[in-house]
Amino acid sequence: MAASPYQQLEEEFRRLHAFRGALAVLRWDAAVMMPRGSAEVRGEQLAALEMEGHALLTAPKVSRLIERADANAQGLEDWQLANLREMRRERDHAIATPNALVSRLAKATARAETHWLEARRTGRFADYAPHLAEVVGLIRDRALLLGQHLGLSPYDALVDEFSPGVRTEEIDGLFKAVARRLPALVKEAIELQAQKPSLPITGKFPAAKQRALCTEVMKAIGFPFDRGRLDEAEHPFTEGMSGDLRVTTKLEPNDAFQGLLGALHETGHAMYDLGLPKEWRDQPVGRNRGMALEESQSLIIEMLLVRSRPFLSYLKPLLEKHFGVAGPEWEAENLYRHLTRVHRGLIRADADELTYPAHILLRYEIEKDLLSGELKVEELPEAWNEKAQSRLGLKPGNDLEGCLQDIHWAVGQFGYFPAYALGALIAMQLWEKLRADRESLDAEIAAGDFTGMFGWLRENVHGAGAKMSVQDLVKTASGRPLSAAPAMRYLEAKYLEPR
Amino acid sequence: MAASPYQQLEEEFRRLHAFRGALAVLRWDAAVMMPRGSAEVRGEQLAALEMEGHALLTAPKVSRLIERADANAQGLEDWQLANLREMRRERDHAIATPNALVSRLAKATARAETHWLEARRTGRFADYAPHLAEVVGLIRDRALLLGQHLGLSPYDALVDEFSPGVRTEEIDGLFKAVARRLPALVKEAIELQAQKPSLPITGKFPAAKQRALCTEVMKAIGFPFDRGRLDEAEHPFTEGMSGDLRVTTKLEPNDAFQGLLGALHETGHAMYDLGLPKEWRDQPVGRNRGMALEESQSLIIEMLLVRSRPFLSYLKPLLEKHFGVAGPEWEAENLYRHLTRVHRGLIRADADELTYPAHILLRYEIEKDLLSGELKVEELPEAWNEKAQSRLGLKPGNDLEGCLQDIHWAVGQFGYFPAYALGALIAMQLWEKLRADRESLDAEIAAGDFTGMFGWLRENVHGAGAKMSVQDLVKTASGRPLSAAPAMRYLEAKYLEPR
Repeated sequence: MAASPYQQLEEEFRRLHAFRGALAVLRWDAAVMMPRGSAEVRGEQLAALEMEGHALLTAPKVSRLIERADANAQGLEDWQLANLREMRRERDHAIATPNALVSRLAKATARAETHWLEARRTGRFADYAPHLAEVVGLIRDRALLLGQHLGLSPYDALVDEFSPGVRTEEIDGLFKAVARRLPALVKEAIELQAQKPSLPITGKFPAAKQRALCTEVMKAIGFPFDRGRLDEAEHPFTEGMSGDLRVTTKLEPNDAFQGLLGALHETGHAMYDLGLPKEWRDQPVGRNRGMALEESQSLIIEMLLVRSRPFLSYLKPLLEKHFGVAGPEWEAENLYRHLTRVHRGLIRADADELTYPAHILLRYEIEKDLLSGELKVEELPEAWNEKAQSRLGLKPGNDLEGCLQDIHWAVGQFGYFPAYALGALIAMQLWEKLRADRESLDAEIAAGDFTGMFGWLRENVHGAGAKMSVQDLVKTASGRPLSAAPAMRYLEAKYLEPR
Repeated sequence: MAASPYQQLEEEFRRLHAFRGALAVLRWDAAVMMPRGSAEVRGEQLAALEMEGHALLTAPKVSRLIERADANAQGLEDWQLANLREMRRERDHAIATPNALVSRLAKATARAETHWLEARRTGRFADYAPHLAEVVGLIRDRALLLGQHLGLSPYDALVDEFSPGVRTEEIDGLFKAVARRLPALVKEAIELQAQKPSLPITGKFPAAKQRALCTEVMKAIGFPFDRGRLDEAEHPFTEGMSGDLRVTTKLEPNDAFQGLLGALHETGHAMYDLGLPKEWRDQPVGRNRGMALEESQSLIIEMLLVRSRPFLSYLKPLLEKHFGVAGPEWEAENLYRHLTRVHRGLIRADADELTYPAHILLRYEIEKDLLSGELKVEELPEAWNEKAQSRLGLKPGNDLEGCLQDIHWAVGQFGYFPAYALGALIAMQLWEKLRADRESLDAEIAAGDFTGMFGWLRENVHGAGAKMSVQDLVKTASGRPLSAAPAMRYLEAKYLEPR
């Protein structure tokens, strides 16, 4: 029997999945292994593969198959229907961007990433600026075309790519609820914590020992080292898919926790990828449900699991074992105080749960201005520093702690930052339900048993793949529509707790 | 003005070049970085990319463009004509193998490679055998089809892929000349050397120090570490292209030289890739002229340069510096005796210049029998051990020093081994001419100045790319047709020298 249009589509998207897997390895290699002088050649390879994926999605053949599969949809099951919908969604996003633009973007972002890495070493924004400007110009073209095609504003069109179905209006509503309560909460928490400060934790923590600690905790959580790696990178990231997961972190010899927190944040992404429905792993419906969901899964580990008393009582003996440390500052209660300390800072990646949203608001405003052309790339450092003053209450001493701290814009990720704040809200909403559903959770975590926690996440979140919208997934998993209320409940209980 | 058929072809082959670069990174990663459990997923990616390259070469569009470019060839320059000829050659090879076979081969070789690596750890040939058998069956199908298409015997068709234009008849003639003289020469050399044995060189040479030594020598030779890497792998190999060269070696803590010799052998490949004509780097004519030439370039470093008195007087202080060694056994003359020691052994990769051809003859005979079906894969260990006894005068104690020692068959490289012996002959023929052209060569090498040597190779060998046949290239560079005579002159002078 000849393959049906739907089956032929599955075959096409299986090929696309293989290209994407290859691209993931090439990107991981570029950031972790590749010699710097090879960026130009790598840019050509990435561009050729992205072009190929783009050509596949925009081929008349695929559009014809989608139409024919739509017309014969009555025989398809739920998951197949959802898969067909996701195929159409990917086609729609791809078809709005012409080939030439895809190719130019791939090359420009490869160049900009290399120069961003270089600027991270030299601190010189000016050398990187023209490469970022090239990316901004191309993303602007892309947002316009995408918006026209999808009937969205240019910025919403970019957001839709990272957080499917989410619009500026919804983001604004959620961010407003957060911004209304948080500044006061930050202030109260800092005052409360000042009454019982944590003992300082200092020392030298060699990279090899940190790596051993990260590896042990990642194994306990369930990261599969036979199908994944942990490496070092300038900026932690995860690449790959459930069959080959590449986690990276940055190990700082003077900081006992930064490397571990980075690795565990990324492990959250990896666990999500690992829990995606296996039978759909090479199809669009088997992919993650966008970046807001991804971030919810990294933050649920980094913020909600790790910064909890049960986890820290599990971690304490591991710190003693790997770092050979002891003393009152290494007691679980002090670790908890240390890691839940609220602190106004300049670096997003180091920010605590309470001050984090302000970092996102800053970027959200700036990237909209960069795209609209209201802000020029050469004015970025100044604009950043001004907004840092008003939003964070601090002025960066240099661009490394200002506009050079994130890789996202260099690699063309505009419209991505809101996903971090949405992810945090989703994480707290899921956490509330997970705790309600699983009374023994704290005891399990304290005993280093994470199977219950990740079993719940796999069943309620990971296993859904891209079957539902972000909003439906959150509602189905937590029993309530997405809102800022669970986050506010969680943060107030945690940070206004009498110590 | 619209692009001419020839220009359109260049564009198509530029895309192919990018796919091949991506494949090189994926293969390097699979051997050096990838977790073992990811082999299945990687196999899918490699297969998808190889299919894509194959589809490009066999597309009716490309064949039509080749015909049209051929018809309008009068306007093309020399290099363009040669490029067009190489395009046709690649198309001819590709079109003889159906898509389904290409895909099955890619997956089967990925699996076989993983199981070969596993068998290298366990020593168990039986676990690897079914995967090798699958590869042999597919290669047999491929050789038949290729032979029919090119009007060659199945085995010649495979050889033609690795050594363009070279036929079994020519190989047999060269091998016969070698086999006639070598056994007696081996015997004489061993007797002569027994009169003045070298002092044994032992010690512990930590991997980090070996790596530092390799790096310093590779830098001196001209390996560009800003566009290349040196890593460890079970079996030394080189992947990549002039913009991103990945050299690997195997570092043995009990052996001062094995890691260095592996790294320098591979550096020979890398220098060839680096010297290919830059303006043609993404076109077929800008590729290397097959594996016999490749091997000539690795052996010219590993055998002719390194195992020479001038090089070893350059190396001596570097060994002292990196390994902290001293004493009579580390004197240049003893190093020379040690590294030119003729020794009947079981491992091809460790073999000296004199015994090496016997290793190739063994493989040449066995792989022809495997492909004809005269020999079954399960009988391979026994057949190998018998031939080792007759050709090498030794019997392997286990399959690790027998039929499990090489990766080639696992990854489908049948018809490749003759290229090693041809490469050795070519290396010695080029070396004779290089020394005649460059009187100051020895003094330069002793001073650690390799620019003259590699300048000559770039001008006479590397820079020709794939513009000429193997035979023409050797004749143009050395002034004489390819023969075994220069090799015999070189080997007799070196190994029958009164000590």
